[in-house]
Amino acid sequence: MKASEVREILRYAKGDVISFAGGLPDPSCLPSEDEICSAIDYISKVKEKAFQYGLTGGILELREEVARYCAEKLDIKTSAEEILITTGSQQVLDITGRILINQRDYVITELPTYIAAIQAFSLFRPNYLGIPMDDDGMKIDYLENSLRVMEEEGLRPKFIYTIPTCQNPAGLSMSMDRRKWLLELASKYDFMVVEDDPYSQIMFKDTNFKRLKSLDTEGRVIYLSTFSKIYAPGVRVGWVIADKSLLNYYELAKQSIDLCTSSVDQYFVLHALQSGAIEKRLPTIINKYKTKCELMRRILEEKMPEGSKWSSPVGGMFIFGWLDERVNTKKILMDVIQEYKVAYVPGSSFFVDGSGWNTLRLNFSFPTEQQIEVGVERLAEAIGNELRKL
Amino acid sequence: MKASEVREILRYAKGDVISFAGGLPDPSCLPSEDEICSAIDYISKVKEKAFQYGLTGGILELREEVARYCAEKLDIKTSAEEILITTGSQQVLDITGRILINQRDYVITELPTYIAAIQAFSLFRPNYLGIPMDDDGMKIDYLENSLRVMEEEGLRPKFIYTIPTCQNPAGLSMSMDRRKWLLELASKYDFMVVEDDPYSQIMFKDTNFKRLKSLDTEGRVIYLSTFSKIYAPGVRVGWVIADKSLLNYYELAKQSIDLCTSSVDQYFVLHALQSGAIEKRLPTIINKYKTKCELMRRILEEKMPEGSKWSSPVGGMFIFGWLDERVNTKKILMDVIQEYKVAYVPGSSFFVDGSGWNTLRLNFSFPTEQQIEVGVERLAEAIGNELRKL
Repeated sequence: MKASEVREILRYAKGDVISFAGGLPDPSCLPSEDEICSAIDYISKVKEKAFQYGLTGGILELREEVARYCAEKLDIKTSAEEILITTGSQQVLDITGRILINQRDYVITELPTYIAAIQAFSLFRPNYLGIPMDDDGMKIDYLENSLRVMEEEGLRPKFIYTIPTCQNPAGLSMSMDRRKWLLELASKYDFMVVEDDPYSQIMFKDTNFKRLKSLDTEGRVIYLSTFSKIYAPGVRVGWVIADKSLLNYYELAKQSIDLCTSSVDQYFVLHALQSGAIEKRLPTIINKYKTKCELMRRILEEKMPEGSKWSSPVGGMFIFGWLDERVNTKKILMDVIQEYKVAYVPGSSFFVDGSGWNTLRLNFSFPTEQQIEVGVERLAEAIGNELRKL
Repeated sequence: MKASEVREILRYAKGDVISFAGGLPDPSCLPSEDEICSAIDYISKVKEKAFQYGLTGGILELREEVARYCAEKLDIKTSAEEILITTGSQQVLDITGRILINQRDYVITELPTYIAAIQAFSLFRPNYLGIPMDDDGMKIDYLENSLRVMEEEGLRPKFIYTIPTCQNPAGLSMSMDRRKWLLELASKYDFMVVEDDPYSQIMFKDTNFKRLKSLDTEGRVIYLSTFSKIYAPGVRVGWVIADKSLLNYYELAKQSIDLCTSSVDQYFVLHALQSGAIEKRLPTIINKYKTKCELMRRILEEKMPEGSKWSSPVGGMFIFGWLDERVNTKKILMDVIQEYKVAYVPGSSFFVDGSGWNTLRLNFSFPTEQQIEVGVERLAEAIGNELRKL
């Protein structure tokens, strides 16, 4: 298993190593003392519900509140009946694999794509087809061509998995034209679209992006998101929006997976939504991440050897890099950690087709600004020396 | 799906219906105002860890505290390295299915057994072999015979799933002799033993029962338990103890299932263990459940028609009943709910061999004493009238 190998190596990234390998929020962006006190007051008041088992589908009040949030903030018209609360959005990926993938089904992903989605889907042994990306996200002309070839061979993908906005790991976003085109193809070739959307609320720039789910007129889009990035990952609360008939299968699967999502966690989130805490804190998160992202990008451009290219994220938590093709980022990782005291995630684990050996993902949300400055300099030195050795 | 049919019917159990169908703790046994305040103080102090992502295996401090708890209270000698914290113990069942069961593997269970374990395992399509129980739990002579027959056919079970103490749903416990015998068979016929132990801390009587894990000298027992019954089910925290090599697979699987267990929930439990809140509250829970259990059993003996038999649990939350063989408890459930305003879970869903049509499970932890008195009377009337119709 590629991913576990990398995880083993990353265990060495401690002590004085600056790590860009994680995906954690900035600790100063977590709930404040005041927020916690207020939440606790609330939770004591509803303690007979908060400390008891909840329904598998989630607390009804929260589902209603999330529906309102989706309508107001995400431009997705939905209702509590179409929403299931999950133990983080990772659980949606796991259940999606369980209920949609039969062995050898085709699943289409971006190249690169979110590693934990690959892990979740792979248990059910699909065939993957990876679609390359450019600055406007997934190349839909390439996708169309692939669909045509598949059709000629009598094949049809089960679903496309996409993170259209601030993609993880690539930090790229799909243009509006391509979003529409993707949905047209989904209709024409009759497949589902799984839209993973953890970052679109942490946007540094004004864009015209609409969520695929908000453009979906045929019930083809399964939308998933999480409160990990806009509230706190220490409470495990995500959600999925899907057609009611499909959502029943999600609920049935969840029943045997973990019975229900933590009620305490759900009441933390419900209070954060109702009290406006999420809305109030979000601009601070956006500003912090924007500053860190710009800083990291600036130093990358300044210090990294020629021939390397960096994504320009409009939001999210990651910058992705393409180095000189002779550099194998996985092969050198252990040396870079031990000699240069800086860590990253090699990109190849994110590519379902085994490519991407010269790529890497850098997280900018967790490290401090000073760590970003020093860490990128160390990385530049490491890669520069590596190139000179070739 | 049987289980979902029953769930559909049980949706009618609301309003003035008294339900013995659930499995919820008594609301008055949940954390007190004082406990919550103290926990909250603590969580504010560790907020940078409590609201952040945690390690997949669980917070190290909690794993160490659980190891201590297991040694002191459960007589299981273990260490943090052999413990994985999970999102409730249901997740252990789910992961056990994933990593141990290949299609058509044999899984042995008690007859009846925990319905959500069957649901979790069934996704991986095992063959089931059910072993009948008597007042001393699983009939190990029957098991030995089955193992011999299987061996002759070149078959070997992958594992036995057992709830040896205060079994759900049967309310029976396995005698010490049988526990030892079971482990001897596990060694002789080379299979794993999955010991599910949610209720053994809620015991109404002194017994000499030892946990299978504490008798295990060959690393064959996978032990799982939960804080749902001794702390609160609204935080989803369970744990599994297994040999380190096997535990790695649990951790890898958990990674793609939900990344990590809620940190907030883990800190609630950690504080409850460290502050002694769990230990302090446990006698109250035991007394309440003992009183309710005795009350329910007494009225069942008094009021129910002849020919019905009831388990005498030494602990836990359920009484199991065997009615006259002509009564099909599933078939009459809807009528009983609508006409007599009382609900139960038909036993047949708990039997992997499709038997048990004349059985039912009654929960005594959640209903009030008054509801137990009135509800059992209603049930007796319903079953009595049903018998007269035959």
